[in-house]
Amino acid sequence: MQALMCVPNISEGRNLDVVEKVVDNIKNEPGVILLDYSSDSDHNRSVISYIGAPDAMVSATKKLVSSAVELIDMSQQTGSHPRQGAVDVVPFIPISGILEEESIQIARNFGKWIGDELKIPVYFYEDAAINKNRVGLPKVRKGQYEALEEKLKDPFYLPDEGPCTFVPKTGSIQVCSRFPLIALNINLASTDLDIATRIAKSVRHINGGFRYVRGMGLALKDEGQVQVSMNLVHYEKTPIPMVMETVKREAARYGINVVKSELVGPVPLGAMAQTMSYYLQAHDFSLDQVLENALIGWSGE
Amino acid sequence: MQALMCVPNISEGRNLDVVEKVVDNIKNEPGVILLDYSSDSDHNRSVISYIGAPDAMVSATKKLVSSAVELIDMSQQTGSHPRQGAVDVVPFIPISGILEEESIQIARNFGKWIGDELKIPVYFYEDAAINKNRVGLPKVRKGQYEALEEKLKDPFYLPDEGPCTFVPKTGSIQVCSRFPLIALNINLASTDLDIATRIAKSVRHINGGFRYVRGMGLALKDEGQVQVSMNLVHYEKTPIPMVMETVKREAARYGINVVKSELVGPVPLGAMAQTMSYYLQAHDFSLDQVLENALIGWSGE
Repeated sequence: MQALMCVPNISEGRNLDVVEKVVDNIKNEPGVILLDYSSDSDHNRSVISYIGAPDAMVSATKKLVSSAVELIDMSQQTGSHPRQGAVDVVPFIPISGILEEESIQIARNFGKWIGDELKIPVYFYEDAAINKNRVGLPKVRKGQYEALEEKLKDPFYLPDEGPCTFVPKTGSIQVCSRFPLIALNINLASTDLDIATRIAKSVRHINGGFRYVRGMGLALKDEGQVQVSMNLVHYEKTPIPMVMETVKREAARYGINVVKSELVGPVPLGAMAQTMSYYLQAHDFSLDQVLENALIGWSGE
Repeated sequence: MQALMCVPNISEGRNLDVVEKVVDNIKNEPGVILLDYSSDSDHNRSVISYIGAPDAMVSATKKLVSSAVELIDMSQQTGSHPRQGAVDVVPFIPISGILEEESIQIARNFGKWIGDELKIPVYFYEDAAINKNRVGLPKVRKGQYEALEEKLKDPFYLPDEGPCTFVPKTGSIQVCSRFPLIALNINLASTDLDIATRIAKSVRHINGGFRYVRGMGLALKDEGQVQVSMNLVHYEKTPIPMVMETVKREAARYGINVVKSELVGPVPLGAMAQTMSYYLQAHDFSLDQVLENALIGWSGE
């Protein structure tokens, strides 16, 4: 069973009629399951997440993008969230049965479709980036929509797909492929924020820790605890249990125990299987053994 | 989403045409997914496992039982596996979204249907047992099919449903509800079988260990290891990680490490979530967070 996820962000979070019309494209697509959508009026942005078989996902996302591009006018748009297009980002996320390379190819083909059919400039970022200086979204979106017309005159900002011309109504569309992210917070029996920050620094990539960990220390005043709050951006390469055990060991250096941890938001089955087999030393455990696997399928197929 | 599993054993493992005809009832039932079936000619027995929504499962199982009862003649049957009926056992197993009590009720209703409609004696056992002296299958099946005619004259063997008369073609049908079983084998870096046996005894119920653990020590000659081989018959009440950690600690008393473990056969998602949240101390993790959950459904519904 192949499962691809997509989490487009559109630059409309106030006119909910528009949001509903855009989301209807997902609700009406056979083989695609809408997971969630939410709008923020301050940000003037909506986030839509859905999952399904790759072909159906691409088909649904084409409809979503076409309809958002038609309904949203960037020349009128304001909001506190950085954005460069009516459809600001289109991230494809391989969940199961899809290689990262395949997901990247899906993202690239999708960007090409936007460029060829909708005549809108497209930038690829993260794993789908072609220009190695434009991997990070902040770099791609620097100066935002308001700077785009000038940026398009700069060779550094030559789009990856579509025309190198400013489309006032839409701006540019940013397309990526990335691995599913795991939000892991570990609470410590201490009120010393400095220790949580030190531990976060020791495990996060930027300071010399694990390659696919981002993190920071937080004070939880109500709980009388501090927290190492982390995003694991590639659980297959930097596994959850390795991070957990490292945080425990670092905390123990200060004589501090872990009180509990939180997994925030959705957790892929693959990450659960990895954690279970790590701790049980069940090196040969296969996802095929998951009893409910037989039940995973696409209604309507 | 509700998922019930059923694993009938029929007393035919040689005439594969018969087995196919019986299994066709499962293959043809909408909302039911055939997981596996296998036949053993020595045992002259076939095991069929399938999963689905409760109503569809009951409907499919009625068809399976009716067809097996029609096609199998116990007065002609021989085989090395203990058996008392053409359909020897019908175990219902609650997998997700179904309480044990509900599964027991499904088993009891199913037994009543066999008695009322097929006029065959029915014994309930394990969690579905009504007579507390007939919880264990060996007790119910004592003397097997050959003794059944005499047993039915004994008040101790009054059937739970159906007539108290011997039906030579079919014998009796044993119906139960039980929790999904987890087969956990833990390999130790030792060749001393005595130590594996001692550890098995310390964790298994019969010798004073955990209530829902059965186990034994085994020598793995080829690997140069010994193994604590266990069945966990109620993982919610006796969790996998608690058993794992106890075996590790007991082995450590002899200075012996765990090399690896094996989870044999299907593992329910609930057991995976339990193990993950135990080790990560993620006390609030919910099965609703499993990303693939949205994909679990019944094709055709």
